[in-house]
Amino acid sequence: MNIIGTVQEMQRYSEALRNSGKRVAFVPTMGYFHDGHLSLMREARKRGDCVVVSIYVNPTQFGPSEDLDKYPRNFERDRQLAEDAGADVIFFPSNAEMYPEHYQTYVNVEEVTKNLCGLSRPGHFRGVATVCAKLFNMVKPHLAIFGKKDFQQLVTIKRMVADLNMDLEIVGMPTTREQDGLAMSSRNVYLSPEERQSALCLSRSLKKAKELFDQGERDAGRILDEITGYIEGVPSTRIDYARICSTTTMKDIDRLEDESVMALAVFVGSTRLIDNYVFGEELNIE
Amino acid sequence: MNIIGTVQEMQRYSEALRNSGKRVAFVPTMGYFHDGHLSLMREARKRGDCVVVSIYVNPTQFGPSEDLDKYPRNFERDRQLAEDAGADVIFFPSNAEMYPEHYQTYVNVEEVTKNLCGLSRPGHFRGVATVCAKLFNMVKPHLAIFGKKDFQQLVTIKRMVADLNMDLEIVGMPTTREQDGLAMSSRNVYLSPEERQSALCLSRSLKKAKELFDQGERDAGRILDEITGYIEGVPSTRIDYARICSTTTMKDIDRLEDESVMALAVFVGSTRLIDNYVFGEELNIE
Repeated sequence: MNIIGTVQEMQRYSEALRNSGKRVAFVPTMGYFHDGHLSLMREARKRGDCVVVSIYVNPTQFGPSEDLDKYPRNFERDRQLAEDAGADVIFFPSNAEMYPEHYQTYVNVEEVTKNLCGLSRPGHFRGVATVCAKLFNMVKPHLAIFGKKDFQQLVTIKRMVADLNMDLEIVGMPTTREQDGLAMSSRNVYLSPEERQSALCLSRSLKKAKELFDQGERDAGRILDEITGYIEGVPSTRIDYARICSTTTMKDIDRLEDESVMALAVFVGSTRLIDNYVFGEELNIE
Repeated sequence: MNIIGTVQEMQRYSEALRNSGKRVAFVPTMGYFHDGHLSLMREARKRGDCVVVSIYVNPTQFGPSEDLDKYPRNFERDRQLAEDAGADVIFFPSNAEMYPEHYQTYVNVEEVTKNLCGLSRPGHFRGVATVCAKLFNMVKPHLAIFGKKDFQQLVTIKRMVADLNMDLEIVGMPTTREQDGLAMSSRNVYLSPEERQSALCLSRSLKKAKELFDQGERDAGRILDEITGYIEGVPSTRIDYARICSTTTMKDIDRLEDESVMALAVFVGSTRLIDNYVFGEELNIE
C-alpha cells in the first residue's frame, strides 16, 4: 500500500490513474477506524479500480471549545486496518500542507447547514465543505463515499458537489451499528461503561420513531414529544437537538409527507453523539 | 468552432481532451469582446492544444444597483471574434444551467477581497470566486488566463486556486490599452465623447505614479495626494478609491518596499472605471 503525504504527489498519482482509464474511489476520514469506516472502504473496493483513503483530523471543522486536541488518533493501527479492507493508498497530509500561511478561502453551503449541527456547531459545515472541496481537488476521485450517520454532512457535501459542478459521484452508505444498536463513532471511546449504556437512548429513539411512523403517525411534534420524554428519563443525558426535517432543505417540518429524517444529537456525559433515521427506510436495531 | 451550452457536455468534452493528452487553455469572459479579451485568447492559443472561451454575464457578482441588465451583449459578434482569435470552443451556459433551483454554495476568499472593489462592491468577489470555481470544474482546464486590469480579481482567483488546491495554472496578462492609454473595458461603450476624454485621468494617473516612483518616491501618501489632486480637477469624475496596496495581502501600505500596486476606481459620469499599476513594471502609456 502507498502512503502519500503531499498534495502534489497525490494529484500526480490520481491524474495518472485517470489518464490510464482507472476509476478512483475515495473515502475521506478523520482516522481512528471502526467498522463503519471499513464498510465504506469495502464499498469503495467494489466500485473503484483504486481505493484512496484520506486520514486528516481537520481543525477548521472543530469549534474552539470542541475536542480537536483529544480526538483519538492511531496511524499504525489505521494503516493496517485500511490495508486489510482493500485500500490502495492512504493520503495523510499535514496541517502545514492543508492550511499553509495566508490560507483564507472557505466554501459555504448556506441553507442546508443552518439547522441541527449547523446551529449547535457554528462554522462546522464551513470547515467540512472546505476540506472536502480541497480533498476532492487533491484526490480527483470518480466517486467519494460517506456514511449516513453524519446525515447533514452528507446532504451538505452532495449540495456542494452539485452547486460547484464537481465532476464526481457522492455515495451515502448505511450507518454501521454495534450489536446493541449504538451507531459506531470514533467518539464512543470517550464513554464510561455507564455512559455506554445510556448512549443506547439514541438508537432506541430511532426505533420508537420508526414504530410510530409504521403505525401511521405523521405528526412530527407527537413523535418528538415521545422521543424527548424518553431520552430525558435516561441517566447522564442532555438533548442538544431532536428534530424532524425535510431531507432536501434540512428545515424542520410539522407533517411527515415528503422524505424526512429524524435527527438526534445527545450529550451522554460530556460526549456528544449523533444519530438519525430517514422515515420509510430499513433500521436494523434489535 | 464548437458551441457548448450544457455543463455535462462541457465536462465530457474536456475530460476526453485531457484523457487524450491534450492541454486545455481557458479564457473566462463576460463577452462583448475587445482587444483585451482577444489578446488573452491569442495567448491561450499559444499555450494550449484546445482553447475554450466562456461567455457568461454572471449575476452573482453584480450588486442590486449595478449594471447587470444593461451590461453589453452581442453573441454573434463575439463568436466571430473568438473564432478569428483562435478559439476552439465557446462555452455559453444559461442562468438556469449555472444557478438552478436550490442553489446555495458560495466560495469566499476572505482577506484579499476586503479592500478596494471588495469595499465598494460588497459580494462582488464572492460571486467572482464562485463562478470561477464552477467554470473551472466545468471546463477542467490546465491553465486559465485573466487580464491584469482586474488586478484584485486576479489575486483573488490565484488565492482561491492555491487554497482549494485546484490543479490548474492561473496566468495574468498585461492590460490592453487604447492608443491614448485608456484601459480597454466592455464598459467603455457607456462613455459620452466628453466622458471618454475625462476617462484618460486613470491611465495618466498611473503614468504620474510611475514617474514619481522612478524618481525614487517611496511614500504612498505623497503619491496618492498627487494623484487624487489631479483626478479631482478633471471634469465629470468622482474617485471611488485610489489606494496603494501590497500585492500579496491587498492591504493599504504606507511605504513602497515590497511589491505594491496603485489601484484606482473612478466614476466618469455614471460609469465606474478601474485601472492599476504594479510599481516597477513596464507601462506603455504615451
